[in-house]
Amino acid sequence: MKNYLFQPPHPFPPAEYEKRICGLVKKLRRLKLDGAVVASETARYYYTGFAASNGLLLVTPGETPRFLTDFRYLPAAKKRVPFVECADILRESETGKLLAKLTAPWRRAALEHTLPHGRYNSLASPLAHITEWTDLAPPIAEQRAIKSRREQTAIRRAAALNDQVFINSAKGLMFGLTEWQVRTTLRVAMNFVGEKEAFEPIAAFGANAAECHHEPDGTPLEKNKAVLLDFGVMWNYYCSDLTRTLCLGKPSKMLAEIHAIALRANRAAAEQIKPGMTGADADAIARGIIEKAGYGKAFGHGLGHGVGLEVHEGPSLSPSSTQRLEPGNIITIEPGIYLPGNTGVRIEDIALVTEDGCEVLSTAPRELLHR
Amino acid sequence: MKNYLFQPPHPFPPAEYEKRICGLVKKLRRLKLDGAVVASETARYYYTGFAASNGLLLVTPGETPRFLTDFRYLPAAKKRVPFVECADILRESETGKLLAKLTAPWRRAALEHTLPHGRYNSLASPLAHITEWTDLAPPIAEQRAIKSRREQTAIRRAAALNDQVFINSAKGLMFGLTEWQVRTTLRVAMNFVGEKEAFEPIAAFGANAAECHHEPDGTPLEKNKAVLLDFGVMWNYYCSDLTRTLCLGKPSKMLAEIHAIALRANRAAAEQIKPGMTGADADAIARGIIEKAGYGKAFGHGLGHGVGLEVHEGPSLSPSSTQRLEPGNIITIEPGIYLPGNTGVRIEDIALVTEDGCEVLSTAPRELLHR
Repeated sequence: MKNYLFQPPHPFPPAEYEKRICGLVKKLRRLKLDGAVVASETARYYYTGFAASNGLLLVTPGETPRFLTDFRYLPAAKKRVPFVECADILRESETGKLLAKLTAPWRRAALEHTLPHGRYNSLASPLAHITEWTDLAPPIAEQRAIKSRREQTAIRRAAALNDQVFINSAKGLMFGLTEWQVRTTLRVAMNFVGEKEAFEPIAAFGANAAECHHEPDGTPLEKNKAVLLDFGVMWNYYCSDLTRTLCLGKPSKMLAEIHAIALRANRAAAEQIKPGMTGADADAIARGIIEKAGYGKAFGHGLGHGVGLEVHEGPSLSPSSTQRLEPGNIITIEPGIYLPGNTGVRIEDIALVTEDGCEVLSTAPRELLHR
Repeated sequence: MKNYLFQPPHPFPPAEYEKRICGLVKKLRRLKLDGAVVASETARYYYTGFAASNGLLLVTPGETPRFLTDFRYLPAAKKRVPFVECADILRESETGKLLAKLTAPWRRAALEHTLPHGRYNSLASPLAHITEWTDLAPPIAEQRAIKSRREQTAIRRAAALNDQVFINSAKGLMFGLTEWQVRTTLRVAMNFVGEKEAFEPIAAFGANAAECHHEPDGTPLEKNKAVLLDFGVMWNYYCSDLTRTLCLGKPSKMLAEIHAIALRANRAAAEQIKPGMTGADADAIARGIIEKAGYGKAFGHGLGHGVGLEVHEGPSLSPSSTQRLEPGNIITIEPGIYLPGNTGVRIEDIALVTEDGCEVLSTAPRELLHR
């Protein structure tokens, strides 16, 4: 493995982002839109490789895209986003006028519905010449759900680091350590090896493992009880996500049983998931096994979700998901069984949907008994 | 100092949140509103002390508030938020019906404009009986801007930890360390002593210090150049924020000069800020000094912002801010001078607005020359 630790994140070459903007232009053409204003921070980063808390990317099919940002970011943007025209976003009060001028020929346009309501209105209202607004978030999500080679490489690295952090942290587990202390340890380890954490790490011990989003507290690690760890290292802006459930000592029959079932569900999904399936089809593989074993009601969430610049993105794998899996999707496979007041398990891997199946990227041992 | 390290965050006693809800009810009455739906995660936490990624808090003057959340959080919510009625939020598709039933007597109601546009619409549209919607974000921000005793204590601790992390990290600075490495060190130190980081830490060396939101990269720490560090420890859900500009070696005349000016601006603001002033008045104290010294154009941002559950909240201290400072506000005082391509400084403290002035909470040394 090459040494990619202690390196600052680096955007991909400009060609990667140009290609992504071309992809967006295709989608705008298909939707018969005259243009789009990309305003959310993550989407702006996705199309420019330039991280800034403020900015607007204007994409008009057939024209050079424009990136507007404020004085704080403008010098860096000009250097780093050579394939778009960079300009000053001006003051809040003048942004509306500038936007109106730049989008004058547009009639049908798109803005993300994921923007804050007030921000959405402040962008859309001054553009009275636009007669129809479309939600830009779904086409962007659709595009982001298919990872390029470079994105796949970044997530592979993030996943490999996640495995390493898990293996090392599991060695350091001791009776009496609190959930909070173990979470701190995970956090520090993630900071050292990767870029940062993709989300707040979860450490849930004993009955707390039955809360699928437990907030770590002062509960101590005890012998023979469940130890659920769920965390994600980021590398080069990309997330990973991993959950393992361990037991130091001898697990109860119940814990051993539900762990074995969740593991079977996890492995079956990993073997059977392939492109063309819907998110519901994928979910059903794991859910069928858990239901058959009598724990259907104890698996209260979907099987998984896409992972990329954000830890939760498309496609969704759940009983209600009609999205079709495609090669290049990177998804989690995370069946869980939660028995409130008693114990819980979740076994989560991340996996790449390939041309004819899926490749699990997480390699950390899935066994319940750690030692 | 009591040992409050390695402790999980703990909400305040329920009375604190009950009091906050009473404060909100007063505001709703003053605005002649029949009720409010508190939907954003931070605001829900502010009023309940219960952290959950999903939920809705319904506040109706004269009635017991209702907290709706999903199966994942419901058991914990019932235990932890005894002063409200907790109920299942049901599936996405049924939430609208449930909300319509619970808000049936409302006509004038409030929702936060900071919610995602799509979410705002999905909450507001099923409630056709509501004839007038008001933005709930400003009254909540107004309330949050005045910190209770308990909040002040939490932020004092966060600030004290921030000072310690700065002092220790400054000792570890060495020539050749990259911005990225120093940022990682800050991050790890923050994770160890506090809860987590309030925002992405900034380490900017040399000319990079002239970008007020520089993203750390591979630039090495060099002798005689500016070393700008900006980071915030969180403690018990509350943020702190601190910036110092150092120089290892002998600073250029220019760097020494702008540091001295920024320091004078910082100290003058700390001495003169008092309740009753507007955010613009406070900003003018520091800006006047920097302008008089000939660097007015190089101070391109406002003097400061409120700090609390979020690192940026009300009140705003800037040339355009008409908000009046009040006792209990916790604000940053952060004059900066940025000379693109050359160097930059910022000296940021956090301070509590008191009955008759302001008390600076940050105590880390402000000197440019560290050794």
